[in-house]
Amino acid sequence: MGEHHLVIGGNAAGMTAASRAKRLSPSLAVTVLEASRHISYSICGLPYWLSGRVPRFDDLVYFTPESLQNERGIAARLQTRAVELLPSRRSVVVEDLGSGRKEVLRYDKLLIATGYQPASLDVEGVDAKGVFTVSRIEDGQAISDWLDSGRAQQAVLVGGGYVGLEMAEALRGRGLQVALVEKSAAIFPAIDPDMASLLQSELEANSVRVFTGRTVGRIVTRSDGTVSGVELAGGHQLQADLVLMDIGVKPRVDLVQGSDIRLGGSGAIAVSERMETSVPSIYAAGNCAETVHLVTGRPGFDPLGTVAAKQGRVAGENMAGRVSYFRGAVSTTAVKVFGLAAARTGLTTEEADREGFQVVEARVEGRFQASYFGGKPSTVKILADSVSRRLLGAQIVGSELASVRIDVVATALAARMTVDEATQLDLAYAPPVGTLWSPLLIAMNLLQRRMDGR
Amino acid sequence: MGEHHLVIGGNAAGMTAASRAKRLSPSLAVTVLEASRHISYSICGLPYWLSGRVPRFDDLVYFTPESLQNERGIAARLQTRAVELLPSRRSVVVEDLGSGRKEVLRYDKLLIATGYQPASLDVEGVDAKGVFTVSRIEDGQAISDWLDSGRAQQAVLVGGGYVGLEMAEALRGRGLQVALVEKSAAIFPAIDPDMASLLQSELEANSVRVFTGRTVGRIVTRSDGTVSGVELAGGHQLQADLVLMDIGVKPRVDLVQGSDIRLGGSGAIAVSERMETSVPSIYAAGNCAETVHLVTGRPGFDPLGTVAAKQGRVAGENMAGRVSYFRGAVSTTAVKVFGLAAARTGLTTEEADREGFQVVEARVEGRFQASYFGGKPSTVKILADSVSRRLLGAQIVGSELASVRIDVVATALAARMTVDEATQLDLAYAPPVGTLWSPLLIAMNLLQRRMDGR
Repeated sequence: MGEHHLVIGGNAAGMTAASRAKRLSPSLAVTVLEASRHISYSICGLPYWLSGRVPRFDDLVYFTPESLQNERGIAARLQTRAVELLPSRRSVVVEDLGSGRKEVLRYDKLLIATGYQPASLDVEGVDAKGVFTVSRIEDGQAISDWLDSGRAQQAVLVGGGYVGLEMAEALRGRGLQVALVEKSAAIFPAIDPDMASLLQSELEANSVRVFTGRTVGRIVTRSDGTVSGVELAGGHQLQADLVLMDIGVKPRVDLVQGSDIRLGGSGAIAVSERMETSVPSIYAAGNCAETVHLVTGRPGFDPLGTVAAKQGRVAGENMAGRVSYFRGAVSTTAVKVFGLAAARTGLTTEEADREGFQVVEARVEGRFQASYFGGKPSTVKILADSVSRRLLGAQIVGSELASVRIDVVATALAARMTVDEATQLDLAYAPPVGTLWSPLLIAMNLLQRRMDGR
Repeated sequence: MGEHHLVIGGNAAGMTAASRAKRLSPSLAVTVLEASRHISYSICGLPYWLSGRVPRFDDLVYFTPESLQNERGIAARLQTRAVELLPSRRSVVVEDLGSGRKEVLRYDKLLIATGYQPASLDVEGVDAKGVFTVSRIEDGQAISDWLDSGRAQQAVLVGGGYVGLEMAEALRGRGLQVALVEKSAAIFPAIDPDMASLLQSELEANSVRVFTGRTVGRIVTRSDGTVSGVELAGGHQLQADLVLMDIGVKPRVDLVQGSDIRLGGSGAIAVSERMETSVPSIYAAGNCAETVHLVTGRPGFDPLGTVAAKQGRVAGENMAGRVSYFRGAVSTTAVKVFGLAAARTGLTTEEADREGFQVVEARVEGRFQASYFGGKPSTVKILADSVSRRLLGAQIVGSELASVRIDVVATALAARMTVDEATQLDLAYAPPVGTLWSPLLIAMNLLQRRMDGR
């Protein structure tokens, strides 16, 4: 009889690991345990379903337990939460969330892929009806129901991260008045404030009111328990019949607390390059596990679906008996809000300063497409370390065709390129899709001149 | 008194070199000699001016001699051809093409940036009125005049390279019937035939008749000396009142023939990493000079404006007394024809075979953008060497947003990445601008599996 592998968590990392292990080792029995009602869904697609661009809810879900069994030979149990690890017995205690019944499942190898959980606001009124976080697909359904009920005309988004920006657009698209509250001095801390201000202008140009440097004092509720407003610290009150909170996430690691599985300094599970935890035969992958940042060389918490999927792939290969390594990532992300796309990779200026690099930066405006093909100026910022001359990171705000060029710098970072090497990258040009001097190269040239004091 | 530098050729390499040298060393006197009537023009924009997308001819020209003098302090002499080098006297004999008068100009440092010249067809009738090549901006004006005269209803394009494809679209846009004749078995040899067939389908879907594996027997002329058709070898005759020939280019090196300036094996001028020729104080840059291919490690002829500009920059820095190196390039190019974009980098399968690599290839269809954002499947092909596991090249045919991703592979090639490293590139994802698994990564994963025989 073959081995039995358990995977806790049925999303990017868990699903990829289960699929990869089963494909490499078809005799394996693989079971995926998932606490929610769905596996294998696109949480990133949620704003686009709420806005109506994704036509059906089912379009967000890639597999049902049935199709997963039929197409990949993998079992999935929904609404099943792992509640206790018993490593010495190679077992997990799981609870059926429907019946409350507990059960002990044995494994030969175990993957923990529990992802992240949203931070919640510790203020009066957060439990009011109409107040949501957005981290599981069910949250989206609840928001959709609330919108469909017609009760929501004014939304307040707390937190100006990815979710805040994308939901601002989605809710404007549904005809709501939208305000966004961000506690930092600038929205979207994934990029530097001077770049984020371009996104703020885009929000405001689309009638989203933006309040930066403001925190929430309390959620105001009606007598029927529904939300009626958000009171900012200091007193200003915003009317609201829908509140979405996206004030950060942390690794979902309750399950391993108190076990021998070591957490890293970031609070996420420490893993080897083979995605193994400190306890033999137990792997971790995805947003509950640490990721080595290839610029700093150190592990950290960097909750991204793309990284989770790659980690899952490596974990699945190792669980199937292969030897496979995950080298790390460089924090590459993108977002689009109304007509403006933004992307980042590596470190921001603030992050690089904090890491002790001697940061030199270049910021240029330029077109990634001839103007007669509709190319509009985009803004590119690139950072390098003046000691090693290595690139540290980049940010782009502008067109879609501009934002995807961030991958060039992401690739250069993975290769530990210096700015001197990067000035000579041989990038494609044809008038419909590029310019003779890519703004990336113009920025690299400027960065090189700055480093040389010319 | 400062030094005097001469630059022969007023386009990408020459203009960039002149500008860079003058900027770094403002006391320099710099003169650009240009045989044609314009400096600093975008030959790549020509099809888009003929189609009307670029509104005015002047939009193709970045500098006039006046603006170059005023803005950059650089002199330019048009219609002035360098006809003889006198290196022992640090002089060049130049001819004023208007008056025929010759003159000897002294230099302290000289840059040869004469670019390429079109190959011409050695058949009867090539000198007929209405038969053109497209390599200088004047060619574009002549074609435009011919079109404006209303004589052209049926065009035959000889050669299915960049110019052939872009002109096919431009001339269809002007309402002409268009046929394209390519002597190879597939059009657009910059990419593999299986990829080029996608472009051929796109041409045919836009009513361009494509004849592959056919050569031109003769150009048929009317008694008034105008073209009336193209007879293919074997006899088939195509009616034509406009013929454009783009059957390849070669380095324009007449000037150095018979001198001590050494040509490389490719027929272009051999240069050091500092862009210096074998004769001291004489530099060469751009399409008349060789370029080291970073995948093969060997110099060759690779006529691209992007590379020319970078070489010009390095030449200009060295001419100004700095020490600057050009490492090489990886043959990255792009083209768009009707609704389809294509890009390549590195080596094609045929090129890699010829170089003796053990080629493994992966070809996938995938979306670079969620389908609900209009993402259509694009085709990605990636090649690696099974011995070293290094990437060798890639080709993409599909949307614009897909084609620009070629730069990721171009960057990976410059960094000599293996396919194993490339499977883990941290590329950006957000539904409007990417997919969780980029088709690039899907292709890399497939390539890795193929190399491992799984």
